[in-house]
Amino acid sequence: MSLKDYQKQIDDIVQKYEKPYWHPLSQLARLSEEVGEVARILNHQYGDKPKKPTEVHAELADELADVMYTVLCLANSQHIELDKALEISIAKLEGRDKDRFAKKSPTT
Amino acid sequence: MSLKDYQKQIDDIVQKYEKPYWHPLSQLARLSEEVGEVARILNHQYGDKPKKPTEVHAELADELADVMYTVLCLANSQHIELDKALEISIAKLEGRDKDRFAKKSPTT
Amino acid sequence: MSLKDYQKQIDDIVQKYEKPYWHPLSQLARLSEEVGEVARILNHQYGDKPKKPTEVHAELADELADVMYTVLCLANSQHIELDKALEISIAKLEGRDKDRFAKKSPTT
Amino acid sequence: MSLKDYQKQIDDIVQKYEKPYWHPLSQLARLSEEVGEVARILNHQYGDKPKKPTEVHAELADELADVMYTVLCLANSQHIELDKALEISIAKLEGRDKDRFAKKSPTT
Repeated sequence: MSLKDYQKQIDDIVQKYEKPYWHPLSQLARLSEEVGEVARILNHQYGDKPKKPTEVHAELADELADVMYTVLCLANSQHIELDKALEISIAKLEGRDKDRFAKKSPTT
Repeated sequence: MSLKDYQKQIDDIVQKYEKPYWHPLSQLARLSEEVGEVARILNHQYGDKPKKPTEVHAELADELADVMYTVLCLANSQHIELDKALEISIAKLEGRDKDRFAKKSPTT
Repeated sequence: MSLKDYQKQIDDIVQKYEKPYWHPLSQLARLSEEVGEVARILNHQYGDKPKKPTEVHAELADELADVMYTVLCLANSQHIELDKALEISIAKLEGRDKDRFAKKSPTT
Repeated sequence: MSLKDYQKQIDDIVQKYEKPYWHPLSQLARLSEEVGEVARILNHQYGDKPKKPTEVHAELADELADVMYTVLCLANSQHIELDKALEISIAKLEGRDKDRFAKKSPTT
C-alpha cells in the first residue's frame, strides 16, 4: 500500500465516528506520548537506563507504527498528502545534505 | 510508492555514506527536534502562542514529512518493516478502540 | 530550597554511583519519555483522548517533577547553573515578549 | 530563590495579561518545542548530527531554562506546588532506584 492508500484507509475508518479527528493540539499530545514510548524502548536498548525487573514494554516496531499512524491522522486532518512532502524530504538527502556526510571511498 | 519502497529508497541513498545510520539515540534526538518543529507550527495555528513578527516557519507538510523520514530511517537501522506494524496499528482502530469513541448514528 | 540546592542535593546522591550521569543523549531520551507521560495526562484531562477503562496514571504533579528532575540532572552533567539561565528566561517575559500579549486594561 | 518563589514571580508577571496562562495543550506544545531545541543542541554536541555551516543555535543553558520555565507555567496554571513533588521525585532516587545502579565500591 502507498502512503496515500494508508491515509485513505484511516480516513474511511474514522469518518464513521462523530469526531473523526481530534483537535490538532490533542493529536500533537498523542504524538509526544508515542515518541516517549519509542524513547523508553531505545533508552533501554541503547542507552544507560536500566530496565526495572517488572517492566514489560511493547515492541519498537509497534511504537514506531503508532508514531506513523499519528502522523498520518494529523496529515489527514490538515488535508496534507504526505507522499509529495516525503519525496521532497528524501530528495533533500541527495541534494542539500550530500556534502555534510563523509562518503565511502569508491574502492571500498 | 509503498512504505517498503520508501524504506528501500532511503537505504539505497544512505548506504553510500560511511556511517549510513546514526546511533539510535541520535536518531531519537532528531525525532524530538522534528516533533518540536511540528509543535511550533501547530501552536501558532491552533494554540495560544502568538507568532513573532519576524518568525517565518516551514510548512507543516514538510515538517510532518521530516518526522516520517526520521521514523523510516530508525526503522531501517533496526531492520523493521513498517508496513506490517502499521497494518496492525490500523487494525487496532477497528478492533480494540471501536467502543471507545462515539459513532455517528446510522440515520445521519 | 533553591534550584542550586536541588542541583547539589541530586549531585551528592548520584556521585555515589559508578556512573553518576547517563550519556547526554540517554538523558534526553528520558526527557522525551517524561514529557510523553505529561502529554498522556494532559490529553486525557484537556484533550480528545478518552481514557481506557483500565488505565491508571500518575499524578500530573509527579510527572512534572520528573521532567524537572531530568532537567536538573542534565544541567548538572553539563556544569550548568540553572538559576542564572532561568532568571534570564523570566526577564525575557518582561522585556522581549511584553508587547506580544494583550494586557488587561488598567480599569479592570 | 526557591521553586516556590520562581512560581510566584512568574505568576505575578503573567497575571497582568488578559490570558495569563495558555490552554494546557498549548503549553504542552511549547514544552515539545523547547525540548526539541535541547535535542538539536545535544545532537550536535554529542550525537552524529553534523551542524550546518550556517546554523547558529542558542546555548544549552538557555534552552534548559526555557524547558524549566514552561514546566513552572504549567504547574502554576494547574495549581501545583512543584517543591513537594520534586522532593518526592528525588527521594525515589535514594529509595526505589537505589539497587538499580551499581555503586562505587567503598574503597574507591
